[in-house]
Formats: sequence, C-alpha cells, structure tokens
Amino acid sequence: MRETLAALEAGEIGIEEAESRLAGYATTDAGRFDAARERRRGIPEAILAEGKTPAEVAALATTAVDTTGRALVTRADEATAAAVASAVGDAGADATVDRDDRVGTVVVHADGFEPPSLDAAVAVVTAGTGDAPVAGEAAVVAREIGAAVDRIDDVGVANLDRILDQVDRVREADAVVVAAGREGALPTVVAGLVDAPVIALPVSTGYGVGGEGVAALEGALQSCSVLTTVNVDAGFVAGAQAGLIARAVDAARTE
Amino acid sequence: MRETLAALEAGEIGIEEAESRLAGYATTDAGRFDAARERRRGIPEAILAEGKTPAEVAALATTAVDTTGRALVTRADEATAAAVASAVGDAGADATVDRDDRVGTVVVHADGFEPPSLDAAVAVVTAGTGDAPVAGEAAVVAREIGAAVDRIDDVGVANLDRILDQVDRVREADAVVVAAGREGALPTVVAGLVDAPVIALPVSTGYGVGGEGVAALEGALQSCSVLTTVNVDAGFVAGAQAGLIARAVDAARTE
Amino acid sequence: MRETLAALEAGEIGIEEAESRLAGYATTDAGRFDAARERRRGIPEAILAEGKTPAEVAALATTAVDTTGRALVTRADEATAAAVASAVGDAGADATVDRDDRVGTVVVHADGFEPPSLDAAVAVVTAGTGDAPVAGEAAVVAREIGAAVDRIDDVGVANLDRILDQVDRVREADAVVVAAGREGALPTVVAGLVDAPVIALPVSTGYGVGGEGVAALEGALQSCSVLTTVNVDAGFVAGAQAGLIARAVDAARTE
Amino acid sequence: MRETLAALEAGEIGIEEAESRLAGYATTDAGRFDAARERRRGIPEAILAEGKTPAEVAALATTAVDTTGRALVTRADEATAAAVASAVGDAGADATVDRDDRVGTVVVHADGFEPPSLDAAVAVVTAGTGDAPVAGEAAVVAREIGAAVDRIDDVGVANLDRILDQVDRVREADAVVVAAGREGALPTVVAGLVDAPVIALPVSTGYGVGGEGVAALEGALQSCSVLTTVNVDAGFVAGAQAGLIARAVDAARTE
Amino acid sequence: MRETLAALEAGEIGIEEAESRLAGYATTDAGRFDAARERRRGIPEAILAEGKTPAEVAALATTAVDTTGRALVTRADEATAAAVASAVGDAGADATVDRDDRVGTVVVHADGFEPPSLDAAVAVVTAGTGDAPVAGEAAVVAREIGAAVDRIDDVGVANLDRILDQVDRVREADAVVVAAGREGALPTVVAGLVDAPVIALPVSTGYGVGGEGVAALEGALQSCSVLTTVNVDAGFVAGAQAGLIARAVDAARTE
Amino acid sequence: MRETLAALEAGEIGIEEAESRLAGYATTDAGRFDAARERRRGIPEAILAEGKTPAEVAALATTAVDTTGRALVTRADEATAAAVASAVGDAGADATVDRDDRVGTVVVHADGFEPPSLDAAVAVVTAGTGDAPVAGEAAVVAREIGAAVDRIDDVGVANLDRILDQVDRVREADAVVVAAGREGALPTVVAGLVDAPVIALPVSTGYGVGGEGVAALEGALQSCSVLTTVNVDAGFVAGAQAGLIARAVDAARTE
Amino acid sequence: MRETLAALEAGEIGIEEAESRLAGYATTDAGRFDAARERRRGIPEAILAEGKTPAEVAALATTAVDTTGRALVTRADEATAAAVASAVGDAGADATVDRDDRVGTVVVHADGFEPPSLDAAVAVVTAGTGDAPVAGEAAVVAREIGAAVDRIDDVGVANLDRILDQVDRVREADAVVVAAGREGALPTVVAGLVDAPVIALPVSTGYGVGGEGVAALEGALQSCSVLTTVNVDAGFVAGAQAGLIARAVDAARTE
Amino acid sequence: MRETLAALEAGEIGIEEAESRLAGYATTDAGRFDAARERRRGIPEAILAEGKTPAEVAALATTAVDTTGRALVTRADEATAAAVASAVGDAGADATVDRDDRVGTVVVHADGFEPPSLDAAVAVVTAGTGDAPVAGEAAVVAREIGAAVDRIDDVGVANLDRILDQVDRVREADAVVVAAGREGALPTVVAGLVDAPVIALPVSTGYGVGGEGVAALEGALQSCSVLTTVNVDAGFVAGAQAGLIARAVDAARTE
Repeated sequence: MRETLAALEAGEIGIEEAESRLAGYATTDAGRFDAARERRRGIPEAILAEGKTPAEVAALATTAVDTTGRALVTRADEATAAAVASAVGDAGADATVDRDDRVGTVVVHADGFEPPSLDAAVAVVTAGTGDAPVAGEAAVVAREIGAAVDRIDDVGVANLDRILDQVDRVREADAVVVAAGREGALPTVVAGLVDAPVIALPVSTGYGVGGEGVAALEGALQSCSVLTTVNVDAGFVAGAQAGLIARAVDAARTE
Repeated sequence: MRETLAALEAGEIGIEEAESRLAGYATTDAGRFDAARERRRGIPEAILAEGKTPAEVAALATTAVDTTGRALVTRADEATAAAVASAVGDAGADATVDRDDRVGTVVVHADGFEPPSLDAAVAVVTAGTGDAPVAGEAAVVAREIGAAVDRIDDVGVANLDRILDQVDRVREADAVVVAAGREGALPTVVAGLVDAPVIALPVSTGYGVGGEGVAALEGALQSCSVLTTVNVDAGFVAGAQAGLIARAVDAARTE
Repeated sequence: MRETLAALEAGEIGIEEAESRLAGYATTDAGRFDAARERRRGIPEAILAEGKTPAEVAALATTAVDTTGRALVTRADEATAAAVASAVGDAGADATVDRDDRVGTVVVHADGFEPPSLDAAVAVVTAGTGDAPVAGEAAVVAREIGAAVDRIDDVGVANLDRILDQVDRVREADAVVVAAGREGALPTVVAGLVDAPVIALPVSTGYGVGGEGVAALEGALQSCSVLTTVNVDAGFVAGAQAGLIARAVDAARTE
Repeated sequence: MRETLAALEAGEIGIEEAESRLAGYATTDAGRFDAARERRRGIPEAILAEGKTPAEVAALATTAVDTTGRALVTRADEATAAAVASAVGDAGADATVDRDDRVGTVVVHADGFEPPSLDAAVAVVTAGTGDAPVAGEAAVVAREIGAAVDRIDDVGVANLDRILDQVDRVREADAVVVAAGREGALPTVVAGLVDAPVIALPVSTGYGVGGEGVAALEGALQSCSVLTTVNVDAGFVAGAQAGLIARAVDAARTE
Repeated sequence: MRETLAALEAGEIGIEEAESRLAGYATTDAGRFDAARERRRGIPEAILAEGKTPAEVAALATTAVDTTGRALVTRADEATAAAVASAVGDAGADATVDRDDRVGTVVVHADGFEPPSLDAAVAVVTAGTGDAPVAGEAAVVAREIGAAVDRIDDVGVANLDRILDQVDRVREADAVVVAAGREGALPTVVAGLVDAPVIALPVSTGYGVGGEGVAALEGALQSCSVLTTVNVDAGFVAGAQAGLIARAVDAARTE
Repeated sequence: MRETLAALEAGEIGIEEAESRLAGYATTDAGRFDAARERRRGIPEAILAEGKTPAEVAALATTAVDTTGRALVTRADEATAAAVASAVGDAGADATVDRDDRVGTVVVHADGFEPPSLDAAVAVVTAGTGDAPVAGEAAVVAREIGAAVDRIDDVGVANLDRILDQVDRVREADAVVVAAGREGALPTVVAGLVDAPVIALPVSTGYGVGGEGVAALEGALQSCSVLTTVNVDAGFVAGAQAGLIARAVDAARTE
Repeated sequence: MRETLAALEAGEIGIEEAESRLAGYATTDAGRFDAARERRRGIPEAILAEGKTPAEVAALATTAVDTTGRALVTRADEATAAAVASAVGDAGADATVDRDDRVGTVVVHADGFEPPSLDAAVAVVTAGTGDAPVAGEAAVVAREIGAAVDRIDDVGVANLDRILDQVDRVREADAVVVAAGREGALPTVVAGLVDAPVIALPVSTGYGVGGEGVAALEGALQSCSVLTTVNVDAGFVAGAQAGLIARAVDAARTE
Repeated sequence: MRETLAALEAGEIGIEEAESRLAGYATTDAGRFDAARERRRGIPEAILAEGKTPAEVAALATTAVDTTGRALVTRADEATAAAVASAVGDAGADATVDRDDRVGTVVVHADGFEPPSLDAAVAVVTAGTGDAPVAGEAAVVAREIGAAVDRIDDVGVANLDRILDQVDRVREADAVVVAAGREGALPTVVAGLVDAPVIALPVSTGYGVGGEGVAALEGALQSCSVLTTVNVDAGFVAGAQAGLIARAVDAARTE
C-alpha cells in the first residue's frame, strides 16, 4: 500500500491508478490484473491465454509476477509460452510449462518466491488419455495453492479393476478431482468409494449427441453419489476449489 | 387368409376391409391393429393405452386376441386394465397385470393360447427402485416373445458391491437390458463386465438439467463400453430387441 | 454383522437377504435402503418421497431408523410426513419436519440416537424468499452430518447493501452454500468475498428462457469466481457436500 | 428528393432507381443501402463487414457517405478497413478505426460532415478485458448518434470494490450499457445501483455449457433488477438503443 | 429513519430489524420487502403472487403500503386479489384490479397516496388478443411510475393496414412497449416506423417448436430494427424500463 | 430401357447394374445417381457438391447429363465448377454458373437439351443482401423445372415501404418463395399480402441466440399467416416445391 | 362498406370502429375478428378456442358468421362447442362438429351460406391412429376452402404394404398433406411416390428425446424428398396451404 | 501372465506396471491400452486417432499388436495411417486401410495372426453416398470380430424400389446395421421388413435444424419399428454390437 502511495506522491501514477491499486488490481495495456484475488483466497490469478496475443499475455504475466511473486497462464500455445518465458526472464523470474498438461499451463515463480506448502493432499483422477490435459490444469492450480497432488490416471469404469486397484490411493486425499469425458461415469463411482469431497471435472471428449462433455456434465449433475461439479474443461476451477478445501483442512490441522 | 375371403364372400366385410386384413391388419373403430407385426418378427403388437379411452383399448385388445391369440397393453391405468379384463373375459380369454410393473402392462392370453418358449435367456437389470416400472415393461415383452427372463434389481453404481455380487447371474444371459435413470452409469459398467449384447434403457428419473432421463440417454450414447440404446422409458422396445436376439440365439441352438 | 448372521442361522432370513445386508443394504417391499452409504461418508441416506406412496416412504423410513438410527425424507408432502411420523412413532422414534423447509424435509431420530456434532460450520445463504425451501433442505442435511449451520437470508444482489452487511457472518463458515434462482448472481458475488469453498445451489425460480433455474445453473458454471455447483434444486447434494467439507475440517481440528 | 428527380429527368437513373431512392435507399452492386434509417431514427446505417468482400464493403461505405455524409462499418478486419479508407479517401472523406474496438468498427465522416452533439450522456461499462471489443462497438454507435460517452472498464463483480468505486461516474449517465460475458452478473448489480435505464450487452466469452454468452444473455433475461437486453455481442444494437434514449432526453432538455 | 431508530429505542424492534430497515427493507413472515427499490429507481416493488399463499401476499402488500404508500401485486388469482383487498381495507387503503389484465395485476394505494405524474408518454402495443394480459401488466407498471399510457391493440402484421393506421398514435410516445407472441414480427415492424426507443415484450403464445414465446424472443434478439427486449411474459420489466425512460424524459423536460 | 437391356446383352454391364438402371438409377464410383427422381416429379436430381471432391462431382454430373440431359450441382466452389465444366465439355455439353448465386449453383444442359417451359410463375423474394445466395439456389431450381421466375430483392420489413412498393409484382406469381434470415418477419408479412401459396426459406444469417437462421425458421413455424417452410438454407427444396406448384398450375391451365 | 358508413352516420358506431371495419376487422369484447383474411386468401379466419372462455369463443363465432357467413373454431372442447352452437343457433345459423376430429373443430354455416366448391382435390394421409385429430383439422380447413378431400388413414411405414396399397389414391390429389408423429418417416416416403406438392404435418406423439413431434418435424426439415412442412400439430396451416394450392389449380382449370 | 511376472522378476518392470498388466492393460507414453477388452468380449480395442499425433497412434498400435495380435485404428488421416504402417512394419506386421471407409479405419494383423471366423452374418445397409464412411467403420469392426459382412448400399427411402429390391439379401443376415443421415427413415423401414435385430447408425449429414445427424438419431429413438440405436457416426459401436450378436448366434450354432 505504501508503495502505491509513494508512487502517487512522486507523481509516477495518477489518483485513479492509485485508487485502482488499493482496490487490489494493477493496470496494463492489455487490461487489469487482479492481485487481490490471490490475497483473498490464496488462489493465484490465472491469465487465460486464449483470445489474447502472446505480447498481451506476457505483459499481464510480468505484472502478476511483480505484484504477487508468481504468474499462472492457462491454455497457452507454444508461442505464448515462449513470449512469457522471455518477458519474465528479462524481469528475473523463471517460467515452467507443466509437463502433464497438453493444453499448456505456464507457471512462473519470481526469483526467491516461496510457494505455499499445505499439510493436505488433493487426488486428481482421470478416466482415460483424453482427460489428461484438463486434469493437468487442475493439478497445477492445486499445487500452486500448496496442496500435495497425486495423479491417478486411466481408471475409467469400462474396466472396473482399474479403479478398484487404486481406491486406497484415492482414499488418502483430503479432496478429490475426477476428470472424465464421454459418459462421465467415473466421478459417480469414485464418490461412492471415498470419504472426502469429490469434484467432478467433465471433459470435452465425445462426439454426436451429448458430446463435447455435455453428457459428462449432466451425469455429474444427476449423480446418485454426492459430489459437486464444475463446467466442461474447467480444470482451473476444479483445482482451485480442491485447493480451497485443502487450505481449510491445513488451517484446521495447524490451528 | 381363408377366413378373410370367406367373410368377404359371405358379404360380412367389404373389399376394402378384406384388402386390409390380407395386408395384415384389422380395423376397429379405435383404429387399425397390426396383426402382421407379430407374424413378421414374433413381437406381439403392443397397444399403448396412453391417450386412448378404456373402451378403445378394450376394443383393440379384443381384436388382438381374436387375430393373434394374445394382447399386450402398455401404460394402462387401473380403469383401462379393468375394461380390458372385462372385455376379453366376455370373449373367453384371461388378462394378467404384470406384477413387476407399476406402469401397468396388461397381458392377455386367449384360452388355449400357447406362448412361445425359447431356449435363450434375457437379463433385465435395474439401478434403483425408480427403474422398476420401465424395466417391468421390458421384462414382460421379452417373456411374451418367449425368452427366459431374469430380473436383477437395485445394483446401482453408487455402491459397486451390489453389481459385483450379481455379475455371475448377469453373465448367464444371452442378451441384457440395463435400466437406469439419473446419471445412467450402470449400463456402461455392466457392458464392461459381460460378453452378451447390452441394451441400455434410460429411465425418466432425475430433475433439473439432464433430468427426465436425458443424462441417462446421453450417457448411453457416449458410453465407453459397447452397447446400444433405446429412448427414455422405452421399455417395450428394449425388451423386444432383447427378445429378437434371444429368438436368433434360440433358432441357432435348435437348427 | 453378527446380527445378520444370527438371523440367517435362525432361519429368519434367507441367504440372499443375508448377502444383501452384509453388502450394506436392507430390503423392503418398496425397494432397498442403502445403510452403507451412511457408514461410508457420514451422509444419512435420503429417501426421496416424490414418486412414492406415503406407505412406501414410511416403510423405508422405518427400515432406515432400524438400521442407522435415523431417517431423512426429502420432498415430503403433508400426507407423507404424517405417515412417516405415525410409522416411526409406532416403532418408538421421533419425526420432526424442518421448520425452514416448505418442500418438506422430515427428520427422524430413533430414541436415544445421538446425532454427530462437528467442530465446523456451514453457512447457507439465500438471495430471496423463493430460495428458502431448497436452502432448507441443504441446511437440514448439513446439520444431520453434524455441522453448525448458519442461515443468512434475502441478501440478493439487486440491493448490494444486503450482502455487504452480512459478509462477516458468512466469513465465519468453513463451507458456504449459496442458493439463488433467476439470474443466480449471488454465488459469484459471495465467492468473491470469502475464503472458504463456496457451493452454488441454483433454484428453479424464474419463467421464460433461462427460467426454472437454468440461467442460475449456467451462471454458476460460468462464474468468474471459484466455486462448484450442484444441479437445480439439489439442496440435498449441496448440503451433503458442505457437510463432507465440515467433516474433513473437524477431523483435522481434532487430530 | 429534388436531386433524385433531377437525376431521373437527366436520364442518369431509371424510374426504378428513382423509386428506390425516394423510398429511402440506394443501390450498389453489393446490395442496397438504407439511407432512410438514418433519417428515421438518427441511427447511422451500419454496414456489417462479415460475409462481404472488402470491395463490397468499400462500395457500400462510399454510397453511405454520398447519401448521408458518413459511414459506419462494423466487424471489419484490417483488409476491409484499408479498402474502405482508400475508397472513401478517393471520394474526399476520412475514415477512423475506433481505438477501443478490436472487432474493428470503422467510422467515416465526409469532409465537412458535422456529427450531431446531444446534451445527454451514455455510460458504457465492462466487466473484464474480454468485453472491451463489443463494448467498443456500442460506444462508437452512441457517439455517432451524438451522445457523450463515458467508458468504465474492468469492474466485474468477482471484486465488488471495483464497481462500488465507480458508481458515482455511472450515475451521471442518462442511459447505461453494461457489457459482460461468462455469468453476466454485472448488469444486474449495476441496475440495482443507478436510476437510469440499463441495457445489458451479453458478450460471447466462456466455454462449456452456458458459454459463448448464453449464460450472460439468460442472466439478463432473468435479472432480479429492471433492465432490457440485446443479443450476445450485439454492441451496435445496445449502443443505438442507448443513443435513442439520449436523443429523447436531449430533445426534452432542449424543448 | 428516525421512525426506525425510535422503534428500536422503544424496544419495539431489535437491532437486527433496525439494521434491516435502514438497509432499506422490511421483514414479514413471508420474507423481506424491499422498500428501497422504490426510492432508488421510482419503480414500485412488485410482489409476485405465483408460488405464495394469499395470506403471504396480503401480508407483503400491507407491509408495502405501510412503507411506501402503495403495493403492486402481479399474477394474482382471484383468491389472492380478495385477500389483498381485505387486508389493505382493514388497514385503510384501496385495492384496484387492473381491468386490462387477465393475469391479475392488483394495485393498492394508501389513503392519500399521490401517485407520481410524469410529463412523458408510453405506448403499449399488442399484436393480438392473446398478448393483452401481459401487455396489461406492462401498462400498469408504467402508469404507477407516472407515465401517461396509451394502449394500441390488435395491430399484428398479418394485416399490415392495422399498424399503418395507428402509426401516428405510436409516434406520440416517448417509449414504446410492443407485446407479441407466435412469430413476434410486430416489434421489428414498429421499430422501423418510430423514433422512440422500442422494447419488445415476447408473449408465451404458440405451440410446437418455437412456441411458448421462444420464437418471439429470438425474433426480438435477431431483429433487423434497433430494439431491446425482455424475457417472455416479463410485462413488469418491460413496463418498468419504459417508465424509467419516461422518468428520464420528464426530468429533462422539467429541468 | 432398351439401352439398358442391350448393354446387358452385350456384356457391357452385369445383371446387378441392369437391375439398378431399371430401378431408375445409375452407378458411378462416387455413388449412385437417381435419374428416376426427375421422371417422377420433374425435379432435376441435384448433386450436392459439399463433402465431395471436384472429380466425384464431375463424374456424377456427367452421368446425370448422360441419363437425363442435364445436371444441377449445388454448393459448388470454383474448383468444382471448373471440374464440372471441363468434364461435361469433353462430353459435349454446356455448364453455366447461375449469376445470382454466390453459393455456386452449376447448371449443365446437354447439347440440344430443351428445358421445360411452364405457363406458371414463381416469385423469389429476399429481405436483404445476405439472403441472395440461398434465394438464388431456389430460383435456379424453379427455372429448371420450367417456371418463369421473378426475383424481388431487399424488401425487408425494417422499412415497410420496400415491400409495399413491390406487392403488385409479388401478386402476379402462382407460388412465392420468401427468403429471410435474422428475425425472418418477411414471409409472414408477404403471406398477409398475397393470394398464392407462400413458402418460407429461412437463411442462416444472424449470430447469438436464435442466430444461424434458427429464429427465422421458428418464426416461419409460428407464423400468424398461412405458409409452409423448409429448413434453414434449403434453397433447393423451396425452389423445387414452388416448381411443383407451378407444374400443377401449368397442367391445369393446359388441360 | 356502405353498411359501415351507414352505421357511422346513424351514430351506431364511432369513427374508430368504422375505421377498424374498413381496415377489415370487427371488434367484440373478446378481441377483434379479421374478416379481411377471408377476402384476401379465401381462408376462413379460424378462432382458436384454447385459452378463451366458451362465451368469448361464441361471441367471436357469431361475429364471424355475421361478417363472412361462416365460422371455424379449432381446438374446442365440448363446452365451447355447445356454447357456439347455442349462440349461432340464436342467430339463425348451423354448427357442425367435424366427425374426424377429436381435437374438436367446429364449423358454422349461416343459413343460406354456400361454401365454395373447387375443381381440385386434397389428400390427407395419416400414419397411425394418433395422427387422426390433427389430420382432421387439416381436412376441415381444406374442405371449407372448397377442395375435395380424401382421407387415407393408418398407412405408416413400419408396414410398407399399407402405403403401397394406397398409392394410386394418393396420386389423384392436387396437393397432399401427410400427418405423422414419432419418427415421421411417412411424408418422405409419400413425397417419393407422388407428383403433387406434399406438405408434412408433424404430430405431437412420442415421448422421450425427440418426442412431442420434434423428431417428426426435424425429419420433415431434413427429408431426402422434396416437401415443405408446418409446425407440430399445425393442422389448420397444413390444410389451409393445401387449400391455397387447390384454389390455384382450380383457378387455372377454370380460366 | 507368466510373461508379466517374469518381467517383474527380471526387474524390467516395476510392481505397479505388473499390476496394471495383470489388470489387463499395457502402458505406453501415449496412455494405456486395454488388452483385456478384447479378451472380455472379443471386440478389438479401437484406437481413436482423432486428437492424437501420428506418433502416439503408432505407439499404441504397436502395443496393441504386441499384446493382442492386431490393432484397429479409427478416424485416421493419411499421415496417421502411414505412421502406423511404418511402425508396425518395423515390428513385422501388416496394416491395411479398409477400402470402403473414407474416414480411415486402419486394420493391422500381426504376422501369423488368425482372425476369428464366425458362422454368422451381419448386413451393413446405407441410405446414400454420404453414409458410406461411417458404415465402413461398422463393417470393419464386425469383420474383425469374425462376422461375414454384406454391404448393401444406396437404398434410401426416397425411392422405395431400391430397398424392396434388396430385401431378400438383408433377410439373410443375423444382425443388421442401417446407416442413414438426414431424416433417417431407412432404419424404421428396414426393421419393418426383416426378422433379425436392427441397429440404427445415424450419420452426421444434413444442415440446419435437425442437421448433423440429430434428426436421424431422434428418428431412431422414436421409431415405430423395434430397433436400438447408437450415437451419430458411432460406426465402431454399431459394428461391435452387431458383432456381439453374431458371436452369440455363432456360439449357439456351434454348441
């Protein structure tokens, strides 16, 4: 806050800019970046790369690193990832592209940034290969919030042995994200097997009627098991909600 | 055929009526009854009671008994069932209301009618209580076609032990109908566990988005397992298709 | 378990019944009751009254009380509530109709049943009068799981002062359910104001395009804030998920 | 009118053309241009560039400048903007691409054209960066009608401080356009804070169910506040309606 | 405000109630009534009777009269209208059921209440007989806001002479509401004929695909003329928005 | 027929091929061409170019010319048109691309082919520029069936003078096709003005909800005037049905 | 016209009423009746009974008989039919309920009214019993326009012999209406067998996805044969369009 | 199994990998391949090429050949087909691209692999040219399962002679797949003509409302004949289900 006021006093910024910053957000040519969201809920502000140019994303990422110590870019293609890496490199930070995530989540940590580390675990479960990229986005976000993340892959219900084999691992988590496309039966089955809260993450696989994740989303909404859901492909939201639960559990553990 | 021609010769019916009968259907005031369908595929012609008065249904049922030896009335309320029982009783036949079926399937057999008996079995599986009526309709039709029918109830996937306990029974069938509403995950799970052809029968349970069986139908269309489906609540069609498979298997067995 | 085996040995039940009980569910004429769900996740098995006769619901409720010490009936009309009260009264238990809930949630506790009591709180927030019944269902379930429940009503966003006045109360909860119909803007606003995980509960108010809760559900799926959602009017699921989070937090607090 | 008749008399145009012009529209090879709309309601006739070649758009724009003194091209890509600039430049007029508007609104004023100037203000409010292009289209149209336009950006409800900070600016307007995608909660919140008529402008952001602006549109239709709406991305219509209100207010002020 | 504080001091109400009132709303057993909305935008708070008992509506109406001097009840059946009339009669006010409105809008004015009277006019236009009730709701609201309302009925486009005959009357209004069901072509035609802002009010007539007002709403969203729309049957919203425009014009006229 | 049998006798074709030809269709590598449709209803068999390679279309077109004397290719891009022109040129016929039709209808007449000429007229009316290509497809088909076709363009209802000016021309037709996108009000207005049967031809213009011709189609289905409709962009079907009416009228005139 | 002016002169009606009549419609308390539609296209103005009271319908019917010599009431229940019969009986006319039509079409002819008689035939074809009421509505309208109507029933495609038997009768018609619900395959098959224009009339039979006539309507829109369609259950429109074609053919025959 | 254990003992794989293999699936970098599905139902595991790189598909195909003796790749473009051919060639197997199938089904048989050969036949029927690729996918799968496959093409119902000519061939099959797009009437007609079970395979042809196969799918769900359906374009599923029926019949024949 002091910095903002000093900048104002020094005439480096105008009053409107100062007001904005104090209200919790910074302005770049590509729009405003909400640093306050991170302070409010511990969720890093995600920069959605889709529909923005690499330069715009890089500018927002640099602002994010400046104001919060890190940046999280989702749905970045290679050009965008490169632009971000170069821009934040110039500013003395490191960018990593998450290896699990073919949709391209880029994580940037400022030099010396210490990510939070929670005493709580999140399991990220997938039904099949096609669910991996969206699940990867969820995993990255949960990890940035500080949760220990366990990926359990390819346990779709067409072969029940797969999930039955892994049920002990899933039961160790404090919150569970289950990513599935097509008919989306896996979240219902998992929620019947574990104690922890389950979050369905429908994936936009499948063609024809009910395709593009619609049947999977509707299956989550109609589930006979207790679970909540996010929208199709909303990996960021699923991971962030699981991270919020992990934060609550961690806070209770460390009270 | 001779009967039709005799009636024509005797002036009891006109030429148009004779033509109709020979083309395979009989006419009553409530519409035409297609006796030929039974001859063609062994599927009894079903009389859908919804949208007809008890008297219209009773007239069609009597015609059905006269021309094919039996009648099958679906979605009959109590008044309709009574009207049918009374009408066919006057004509010397017996009506039974299927005990499994709260939607009211009425079966009538003419005195001395010998229903077919196939050397082939159909399993009719349900996920929960709400699926019973529609499954009952399927079971009645398959039984009328001649299949041995095994009902396996309440094995929904929210508790996997239920279906795993019963999998040996399901595996004995030559064709399997799986009725499920809500998220409709059971047909996918069953088709992953058995060899025989599986037919999904979505049921109109569930409210909100994807309710009224829509999510269950879309889940069947998107299933990761191999199965075919019928429309929501189309118990007659599911049972008849299972019966056709049973007929094919029986014919092959007895070649 | 011993009881089940004893009953088998005594010939009171057959082998199939014994298997069923051990697999975790009891059978009545109106279907099976899944006692195991309660053991698995602490969520009382809800008996959905819609589509069942009062007598069927009463039979299931009595079985529930016998096997788990309590029963939870949702969407009960007055005749059903009376039938349940009478049936469980004969069996020596007490039924209460939740006062907040015009859709009729009936709670039954067996004599001497001690409901769980968690060291964790759930806030149930509504936008307007029409959201109260569905929110009431959520509140009852969360309370039965053992959470301390705080109801915060009529704080819809058409008058922002309402929610701003109550934000401190909402912030005290470990999990927040926000019920809203029409355009469903409230969950997004609340999730921007609190740290805890927020669960949107869309309500089937509103007519025309996007009515019956569809716009509210889609708004939750598209929310700019981090939250998960349940289906339209799925008060039971929202309350149960909030209760699962409260259980996790309570367990962490008492480790 | 005299010009038209003179051209007819001089044999420069035929009777059909004369009739057309008097009925208020001019014909080019690329279709007819409705000069009368401008006369009727003061709304400049917009030329939608999508689905037309640059040459077709340039021809229509030149006709527009000839008959009304200006042209307004919406959704123009760079090639189209260049073609228009070149064509009208040859005809002695100036084209400007609106700076706010990434969807490419091109404004052309004939040399000496005096745009109207109303004693009335329109606020154009956006929730986030993605809403800017569509909002820009609305702003341009309102400005061409003569309103004083105030852009208030990035005040989405996920951080309520943003809109609360700006509410005094919004209250100064005679009509308010609020552009928002995703869940579209902002128009409802703004309409609860101001006296003037509010027009929702849903924006096609967001993916999955309710995406592409559908949830935002349905939210506007279901809003608990009083507001009217236009279709998704219909910036032109929203700006024009706001401009019509500004005209009415200006006329009343200057009566 | 003083009254509220006095009541608090006198112990007639508690602190929470006092806070509520100062935040602008009153509480009854049937929910809260937002008196502040009227102060904010001049729109009387409407009490939607659908889904409430006559007694609940009557209680809310009495509160409304007490706090704002009037009450507006929409979609009231006869029993509700009677309950309101009786309750407010006891409290010394008068209730009138609007004659145009078969959906039952009830207007109550406290003894001595002086409704506002604006120097501005609203035209309410209908295509056919089926549009009258919804249009009536719009007319009542606009009138309560103080506008002079002109009803122009049965001018649907299947016979163009009808609307062409009345166009001069429509042109006298400062804002125009056009109610139409079925294909909803009338708002487009009217907006092509007048200068003032036009608000489409789709009506839920028509069956089959596009029925229940859906085609009319989509037609308004797709209109080639400039207009904004409200949801199907949202007469209250259309009338209130027209009233807000009339207020703005009146204010400008009387500046 | 003789030709077919001769070819069979000569061993040039096999029995299956002969059967096919006698059943009315010819086979090429790209599929079968139904020469019989032309004989049955006078409608030239259209070859839909979309989804076929230029070579496949050219082969089918050559077969069409060989068996019926002409070919009609719809939705052809330039490469396809060129391939057809070249292929039929080699075979001694002429191909013309219809000038009105930007979607690319190609007409081929064999040398000496005499198209039918009916004593009946079809009017093809459009609302705006975007409707021209689809309307052009309708016009070409009607002309090939033999009708005299009158194109009346740009008479959309946002400016009623346009259609009122042209109503006498429209009234001269024996059947009327009215092409309109967006809100699709024009067919309803035209059907209120003329005696002849009107066929609505919805066009896939417009974006957002109800876009891509959906609102126009639903408007036709809900029309207050008497008219029938075809699917969105189904210019071929609209023109062919108008042509069938013209054939019926011509036959009656020349009886 | 003279009558109207005389009534005005005599002071029996006011100027507004006179204007209305001359514009072609009469006013009753239940709304306006468009006598002009009959004069314009020969289609009797239908009074849709749904949503009107018996008294309102009777008043409109009496006005219709007074101004045009007949009345056509659609979707009348028994009470409405009785009210109409009684009202027009008092006025010296006769009402008949069409025997084919279970949805209740009432036809009234004034004493001495001579219905038109065209030298042209319309076939009305149905797939099954459920299609009869809607087909009956079409038949009545076509007959009132003057066409000779031939009903051909129960020829659905599940048994192809039925339609093949009747194809010669269908071929005698100048226009064909084909009513079918469920999958709606019959219109496509019929249009492949006849020369005359075919109008599909989808019927709201069938449940589940695609039910209520939706699949039948979409099948008509997607038909591989040339045909146009009306909305689900729009018997009046289908019959009227067939009647317009019959009028055109009759006019050509009698030129 | 021994191989797996040996590999474990030899330290070539870890315990987790061993568990996976025994549970029936192999792991590659591109995901897991379910060898067990083939053992369970005789259906070769299909590798969906869409959304995977050629290298990923080639790796999965090689794994499939290694573990099951064959591979089946669906929806492969040319680059993918080439990559598969090259990869499996290196591993000593042969790849064939099915000639009927423009969507690119690639079949690979390991050297010495003996495909099953069943004493049962499957007919694969198409309505038109556009249905061939999807039908081809069905045919390949059925053939790989071991059925004798008979392709019967271009027998759409717009010309009934086509299907009537071929009905004897269709009647020879033990199971029938009927592929049709647009209005999808053919499955209904075929199921009315044959005894064997019929599986509808809707194809994504057709544009506008009901296009992309939606009308065809809904037509199958609503069919008046007995049949089951798969999703739009789900050739693999239709062929596999037909193959399962053929397996059942073959097993019965050879008992």
